[in-house]
Amino acid sequence: MFNFQIEKESGMARTGTLTTPHGKIKTPGFVPVATRGALKGMSFRDAKSIGADVFMVNTFHFYCKKEYEIVEKMGGLHGFLNTDYPLMTDSGGFQVFSLGTGYGQDVGKLPRKNQKKLSPLKKKNAHFFKGRGGVKIEEEKVIFKSPFDGSRVEITPESSIKAQMKLGADIIFAFDECTSPLESYDYQKKSLKKTNRWAEKSLETLQNKKQRMMGIVQGGRFEDLRKESARFISSLPFFGFGIGGSFGESFGDSKENMNFILELLSKELPSDKPRHLLGIGEPEDIIEGALRGVDLFDCVIPTRFARHGAVLTSKGRINIKSSRYREDNTPLDENCSCDICLKHKKSYLHHLARKKEIYGIMLLTYHNLYFIFNLMEKIRKAIERDSLEQFREGFFKSYKMF
Amino acid sequence: MFNFQIEKESGMARTGTLTTPHGKIKTPGFVPVATRGALKGMSFRDAKSIGADVFMVNTFHFYCKKEYEIVEKMGGLHGFLNTDYPLMTDSGGFQVFSLGTGYGQDVGKLPRKNQKKLSPLKKKNAHFFKGRGGVKIEEEKVIFKSPFDGSRVEITPESSIKAQMKLGADIIFAFDECTSPLESYDYQKKSLKKTNRWAEKSLETLQNKKQRMMGIVQGGRFEDLRKESARFISSLPFFGFGIGGSFGESFGDSKENMNFILELLSKELPSDKPRHLLGIGEPEDIIEGALRGVDLFDCVIPTRFARHGAVLTSKGRINIKSSRYREDNTPLDENCSCDICLKHKKSYLHHLARKKEIYGIMLLTYHNLYFIFNLMEKIRKAIERDSLEQFREGFFKSYKMF
Repeated sequence: MFNFQIEKESGMARTGTLTTPHGKIKTPGFVPVATRGALKGMSFRDAKSIGADVFMVNTFHFYCKKEYEIVEKMGGLHGFLNTDYPLMTDSGGFQVFSLGTGYGQDVGKLPRKNQKKLSPLKKKNAHFFKGRGGVKIEEEKVIFKSPFDGSRVEITPESSIKAQMKLGADIIFAFDECTSPLESYDYQKKSLKKTNRWAEKSLETLQNKKQRMMGIVQGGRFEDLRKESARFISSLPFFGFGIGGSFGESFGDSKENMNFILELLSKELPSDKPRHLLGIGEPEDIIEGALRGVDLFDCVIPTRFARHGAVLTSKGRINIKSSRYREDNTPLDENCSCDICLKHKKSYLHHLARKKEIYGIMLLTYHNLYFIFNLMEKIRKAIERDSLEQFREGFFKSYKMF
Repeated sequence: MFNFQIEKESGMARTGTLTTPHGKIKTPGFVPVATRGALKGMSFRDAKSIGADVFMVNTFHFYCKKEYEIVEKMGGLHGFLNTDYPLMTDSGGFQVFSLGTGYGQDVGKLPRKNQKKLSPLKKKNAHFFKGRGGVKIEEEKVIFKSPFDGSRVEITPESSIKAQMKLGADIIFAFDECTSPLESYDYQKKSLKKTNRWAEKSLETLQNKKQRMMGIVQGGRFEDLRKESARFISSLPFFGFGIGGSFGESFGDSKENMNFILELLSKELPSDKPRHLLGIGEPEDIIEGALRGVDLFDCVIPTRFARHGAVLTSKGRINIKSSRYREDNTPLDENCSCDICLKHKKSYLHHLARKKEIYGIMLLTYHNLYFIFNLMEKIRKAIERDSLEQFREGFFKSYKMF
C-alpha cells in the first residue's frame, strides 16, 4: 500500500511517486497546509483540481484540547473531513518551537508579547530552554501553556504519535525538538541526542500498518551534527525523512546555509526514501530544494500570503493591496492561466483585498496555490529533461526576489 | 430588453419572469447581497449553480470614497466584477438609516457606541433627525460622517443616482429616507413628502436606457401614508417598486404589521410591475411576502448568518457552534440535498465554525443560500399549483421559529 518509487534522477534532483492507501503523490511535490483540517479559503476538491495530491494537517491544533479524540470518533481525519485524499500530520515539534520563540503566527491566541519578532541579537538567546512563552523542554517531554486556553499541556513522543494514530493520516512524523539555526553547537548537540531518542520512542509507539512515519533530521547549521543525525535517523526503519530545523532569513539564518545542508543530506540520506523539507517554502526555496534532492515541501506560504494580499507571480511577489493596482485592469500574472488570472483584473482583487473580503482571500488563495502547483509541475518536467538548472536560471531571470 | 411578465396568479401571490439585458430572473426570487461586489464566501458562479439569478450590490459602500468612479473606469460593475449576471444596486437610503440608528451591522467601522442595540424604549427616540451617529437628514440631502474614514459625506437623490449610473447595474433604486417603524405619524408624513420629492428627482436624474429604476414606497406602519405613498410612486414611470421601511422585531416592530402593509400594497400597487421587499428576510418572511404578492426579496441573512454559525434548516434555525453538535455525525439538514449536506457531518462544520475557519464560512454560506433558493423554487411551484397556503402550513409544521 505504501511505496516510494524514484522515476528519474538528474544530479541530486529526482522525480518519483509516493504511493499511499489514499492515492499517489507526484514528487517533487508541494503539500498545502490544512492546519485545522481545512485550507483557509479553498476546498480540497478545488485544490486537487489544480494539482494538490496530499494535504498536511497540524497535530498541535488537535492536540492541546485533545480534539483528536473527537476526530477519532468521527472516523479519523479522512472520515471527519470526508476526504479520500492522502493526508499527512506533523508531530507538533515545530509549533512548540514556534510557541517558544514567538516566530510562528500559526498558533492562534499566543500572548501578544510573544508574537513580536525578536531582533537578531535577541534571537540568539531566544531559545525556549529559558522558558520563553512558557515552554519548557525536558528530557522526556515538552511542557507549555496552551496558546488556545492557557492550560498546561505536555507532549511526549508517545503522546504525539498516539494523537497522530487517532488522527489517522497516511504519513505521520516523529516527535522532535525543532531548534533555531542560531543555537550554539553545544545546545544543538544535546538537543540532537534527545531528538534521536524521541525518534526511537516515536517509532516504537506506532502500532498499526495503516500509517507510515517519517523520521526527522536535525542538527542546526553544523555539518557534523547534520551528518550524525542523518546517519542515526536513517539507521531506523522510517518510511522517509523530514528535514527539520528552521531555515531562512525569518529565523536569522541564510538561505545558503539551507542549500549547504541539503547538499550534505542528499549524500547522507539513503536515496531510495522520500525526503520532506519541513515548512519550506517560497518558490525560490522549492527550486533550490528540488535541485538538492528534496521530494516534498509543505508550507503555509501560498495560503497565508493570500490572506495578506501577497501574490506569487512569474515576476516575483507583489502585494495586491498596493495603491498602484487600484485601476489596473491586467490580470495578477500575465503568464498564468489559472481561473483567477483568466477572469479577474487586478483592480477588483485590489478592492477585495483592501476591504478584507473573504472572497478576495478565496481568489488569491486559488491563484497562489495554482502558481505553486504549476511550479512543481515545471520542476518535475525539468528534472525529466535533465534541465532543472536551466529552468532555475530562466525562473530567476523574471522572478524578482526581495 | 427590460420586461416583467406575470405567469401565474394565485390569490395575491404570483410567479413571473423579470427580463434584463443580462438575463432573466424568476419570481418570486431571492437576491443575494454582494455588498462590495462579492458574496462573502462564495463565487457568483457557484451561487448561480444553486439558483441565484441576480445579485444586489450596495451603492453606499462604493459611494463614501467615490469608488464608483473606479468601477466606472473598469467597465461598470459588470466589467469590474467580470460577471454577465443581472445586477441591482440599492440607493444608500437604508445604510443612512442604519448608520443613524446603529441597527445595521453592514456599514463597517461604525464607532462602537453606535453599534450597540438600543433598548425598545430608547428606540422610540432614536431617529436620526436628532443627529444620531452624525447623520443629518435635510430637505435636499443627507449628511453624515463616513463610517469608513470619518470624512463628511453628502448624499442627494441626484448624487445617489449618478453613482448608480456609474456602477451600471441593470436595476437601480430611487433614493429615499428609510424610516424606523417606530417613528410618529407626523414624522412619517413629513418624511414621506421628502421621499416622494426625492423619487421624482431620482427619476429625472437617470439619463440612460440601460438601467431601470424602482421607486420606493414608504409610510411606516400607517395605512393612509402607505396608501398615499403607493399611489404617488405608482403614478411615476418607475419600472417597479421597492417596499421600504424597516420591518420586524429587530426594529421594534411586529411581523403582523409587515403582513398588513403588504396586503394593503398588493391592492394599491399596479399588479403588472415587480414588487421588491427591501432587506427581507428570514424564510418565514419570504413565505409571508410571497403570499402577499411580493416578487423579489434581498437580504444578507443567509450569508451573514453563515458567518455566525447560524444555519437554516427545514426544522428551523440552528447554531452549529453549539456544543451539542461536537460529535454529531449527521448532516446540517436531513432534508437538504446540497453538496454540504451530502458530504459533511455537523461535527466537522461545528469544528470549523468554532475555530472561525474561512472554509467553514464558505460551507455554511453555500448551505444557507441553497436553502433559500430551494425555498424560492418550492414557493414558485406552490403558486403554480395554487397551493402556497398549504405549503406555508407544511413548512411551519417542521420549521421552528424563535
